[in-house]
Amino acid sequence: MFNSAGSVDRLVNWLSRLPGIGRKSAARLAFHILKLPAEEALELADLIREVKDKVRFCSTCYNISETDPCAICTDPNRKSDTICVVEEAMDAAALDKVDEFRVRFHVLGGRLSPLDGIGPDDLHITELIHRIGDEVKEIIIATNPNVEGEATAHYLSKLIAPLGPKVTRIARGLPVGSDLEYADSVTLMRALDGRQEI
Amino acid sequence: MFNSAGSVDRLVNWLSRLPGIGRKSAARLAFHILKLPAEEALELADLIREVKDKVRFCSTCYNISETDPCAICTDPNRKSDTICVVEEAMDAAALDKVDEFRVRFHVLGGRLSPLDGIGPDDLHITELIHRIGDEVKEIIIATNPNVEGEATAHYLSKLIAPLGPKVTRIARGLPVGSDLEYADSVTLMRALDGRQEI
Repeated sequence: MFNSAGSVDRLVNWLSRLPGIGRKSAARLAFHILKLPAEEALELADLIREVKDKVRFCSTCYNISETDPCAICTDPNRKSDTICVVEEAMDAAALDKVDEFRVRFHVLGGRLSPLDGIGPDDLHITELIHRIGDEVKEIIIATNPNVEGEATAHYLSKLIAPLGPKVTRIARGLPVGSDLEYADSVTLMRALDGRQEI
Repeated sequence: MFNSAGSVDRLVNWLSRLPGIGRKSAARLAFHILKLPAEEALELADLIREVKDKVRFCSTCYNISETDPCAICTDPNRKSDTICVVEEAMDAAALDKVDEFRVRFHVLGGRLSPLDGIGPDDLHITELIHRIGDEVKEIIIATNPNVEGEATAHYLSKLIAPLGPKVTRIARGLPVGSDLEYADSVTLMRALDGRQEI
């Protein structure tokens, strides 16, 4: 594309492999980086080097962390009787923003997806089972509310229930601030199914 | 957001300042980078370092290049009597993909935009004027077909016309493959104004 500058071409190629970034966005990003002051652009280079260098996965919960075990697993202010199971570290980060929800997490590293060849052995499921001791009273399954996430939740609940802890699933229903009129029928059905007395 | 990993937070912050990338996309990109094999992620770090290191602006046409003058300015197979004026290096790259269009370029580095405080002195306009010698027969103004691009084109044409070369403007009309029914009225007007005998 830019035969006059091989490295720019390679940067565009690299960026266009990012999720959700097409060739045109990649070119726009590359040009943006080119126009940035050198120190600001090199900051990104250094940050990438730093995260790849420092960031590890916690050997207990498989969340990302610069320490092992991670700050969440060693936090004495979190309930140790509840483990919230999520697909990815991003999901744990999203749930952790809810101030009232101070629990420990377990990151599966994906969801069951037979079509993509992802089975139970590809996720941190055995490690989750090993974490379930006598003190664990509840496992909250917070996989995504889509087909694969629900299948993963179902699989986990069957596996965990016999071990003792209560297995719960996050509620599916209408998002706060949304419009009933625009909701799809599956969401409406879930909202009706999950209705609670007021 | 990810209090357990400071460097990830800083990476997300950096990425969210990119054009068209919000906080959520930035987080998704950061996690994608985290999950990549180390060598692939470090390739990006190296590429950024490399482009900031190597890529310069050609002192003739102000296009990006690893050499000065750039490969386009020194290409003997390009017409030296025609200069195509564009706003940004990306625009030159887009036009250069048209195989039948082998000309030299001049990158202004932006467009006139009084609201943003960008005047003629902020663009490479004086440098363009200096390039216009006896051998230059045509200046094609290929700034964007929007208000600021048109104003820039108008300004340049007034400035260049007295110097001798023919000043032309790329055609505004209906994009190939589009639907007349959905075109806006300004585009339709331009398409009618620019009608040609067949």
